[in-house]
Amino acid sequence: MIKAVILAGGKGTRFWPLSRQKRPKQFLPLGNSKEQSLLMLTAERLSSLVKPEDIIIVTGADYTSQVKEQLPEAQVLAEPVGRNTAASIGLAAIYARKSDPEAVLVVVPSDHLIRNESLLIESLNRAIAAASNGDALLTLGLTPHSPHTGYGYIKKGPMYEDGVFRVDKFCEKPNLATAIEFVESSEYLWNSGMFVFSASTFLKAMEDQMPQHMEILSVIEAQIGTPLEERTIAENFSSFSPVSVDYGIMEKANNCCVVPVDNLGWSDIGSWEAWGAELPADPHNNRLFTPEPIVIDSSNTIVYSDRPVALVGIDDLIIADSGDALLICKKDRAQDVKDVVEELSRRKKTDLI
Amino acid sequence: MIKAVILAGGKGTRFWPLSRQKRPKQFLPLGNSKEQSLLMLTAERLSSLVKPEDIIIVTGADYTSQVKEQLPEAQVLAEPVGRNTAASIGLAAIYARKSDPEAVLVVVPSDHLIRNESLLIESLNRAIAAASNGDALLTLGLTPHSPHTGYGYIKKGPMYEDGVFRVDKFCEKPNLATAIEFVESSEYLWNSGMFVFSASTFLKAMEDQMPQHMEILSVIEAQIGTPLEERTIAENFSSFSPVSVDYGIMEKANNCCVVPVDNLGWSDIGSWEAWGAELPADPHNNRLFTPEPIVIDSSNTIVYSDRPVALVGIDDLIIADSGDALLICKKDRAQDVKDVVEELSRRKKTDLI
Repeated sequence: MIKAVILAGGKGTRFWPLSRQKRPKQFLPLGNSKEQSLLMLTAERLSSLVKPEDIIIVTGADYTSQVKEQLPEAQVLAEPVGRNTAASIGLAAIYARKSDPEAVLVVVPSDHLIRNESLLIESLNRAIAAASNGDALLTLGLTPHSPHTGYGYIKKGPMYEDGVFRVDKFCEKPNLATAIEFVESSEYLWNSGMFVFSASTFLKAMEDQMPQHMEILSVIEAQIGTPLEERTIAENFSSFSPVSVDYGIMEKANNCCVVPVDNLGWSDIGSWEAWGAELPADPHNNRLFTPEPIVIDSSNTIVYSDRPVALVGIDDLIIADSGDALLICKKDRAQDVKDVVEELSRRKKTDLI
Repeated sequence: MIKAVILAGGKGTRFWPLSRQKRPKQFLPLGNSKEQSLLMLTAERLSSLVKPEDIIIVTGADYTSQVKEQLPEAQVLAEPVGRNTAASIGLAAIYARKSDPEAVLVVVPSDHLIRNESLLIESLNRAIAAASNGDALLTLGLTPHSPHTGYGYIKKGPMYEDGVFRVDKFCEKPNLATAIEFVESSEYLWNSGMFVFSASTFLKAMEDQMPQHMEILSVIEAQIGTPLEERTIAENFSSFSPVSVDYGIMEKANNCCVVPVDNLGWSDIGSWEAWGAELPADPHNNRLFTPEPIVIDSSNTIVYSDRPVALVGIDDLIIADSGDALLICKKDRAQDVKDVVEELSRRKKTDLI
């Protein structure tokens, strides 16, 4: 049985004013449809692999009601506190193993965009096959077309089976010179944050690489389905050290494999600028997500608004309008939107952060 | 008896998205208080000269309910169609003369800002005294401190009485070279659009200079207070030719005088940029009219919004947010906001224009 595990615990402040502490990116309709959040699009994308009830959403306790509203059929695992991805996936793995000892997990972030959905399913199926027939920990690796310094890279090793390669090594975010080497060598892939493994293989790796994590998971696993289940999670979850699955397991395990994927149409939409890049451009490179845009002598803008917006003589701006607040940001300053949230936090404007 | 005549028939599209066909500038709270419109501020400014019921508002028929809401005690004269200021003032004059043959009119626009209110009253009182004791048509003339090419100018003649001068001539909007000469000569004043005269003197001038206007006014005047009053206005008003009081009377009459006024703190706030100039500036020349501004590395901006607005790395922009629509405009393009309204008009977006 395949279980999709969607990691939906992210907070993120880079989509202010649309994103808020109580409404982070994954719950926002940033996928070019006002009707569906990134989380909903993520679930829909996996619908040919798993039934809605075989989706496990791991999220923060504050977000469970939003998840249940958006994906009522999915199983929701609520983390009392965030403890990074090793703990999240570990928790999902013990639940999946409980319902099926042979379960294969497809683990994906909840807040990315992927345009080429059939290629995604094809690649995941290749990984699922490898995970089902052996003990590999698989990841999807994206062929890089630019020397991005914001992503981790994976160096391909020898072939494992058709379309699947052993991982030679995982590399942390490189500097630009190294990133250029990586891209030119054709031996490196971007770490997509999408993983495939059987629950038992993952938990075996956890036992080997992160025994303290596994100890806590065992305490929780023993109470699944009992009246003590919720309380056990509440009492133990904060004991997990906050370690990512990449650092805690993938980089240390010797059974990692990667499925290279090219032209997936993937974006982690890490900022308003990245979000805008996914929208269609007008002849002056304006990317407008607003019901009635009026554009006069303006270029290179990105606009998010539910209301009519008029642009006169402007260039290189991001305009993000959440209805209750407004951001006007020079395009190359999109990463500094977090400073706005910090400033609001200093001013204790809790309703705005 | 003094009657204040406030001309409130203007339409104007330069304050889009705040201004709309049905809600032009004079009805908007552009005077740095959310509570009072420019019209209300105008009436308040004259409150030491006239009682509320001695204010006559001449406005378009579409606007009467807004006027009555904002100034319930004033007398409202509704024009079925706009026919420029000669007709508006003529209409006010026959009503004022009906209630008092000796009435002196203080005629002011409804959509300007004046900071130095005591100087205004002092200057108007000087003009009222001259108008009461003779047959002068008076205007307030503002000492120019810049060669503005957007205003008409008045050349001062010999002294008429203390603080009052005969008008040598009225000059239409000059080109820049001429405007510089005007300012340097110290003999010219800006035409403020504020007039003082007795109703009878004005109507005598109208009879002399605009006999067709006077004919129509006489037809209306005969029906004031009768059941036919409204119908007579409705049937005759469109026959007025659309001529300004400046062109139709002041420029042609030989009994014009001017009261020079310096440092009145006057602005006709003809654009968002002019409006911004009246706001206090922060150290980076941002002029922010919004409840919770967050300013990061931004300068020379003008912001109107009821909502929190964050600026990151921007310069020289006007941001005007009406709640139901949004304008982002390069500062030196403020005059082109009317093009937005024209475009919306072409698209037949009647709810937005």
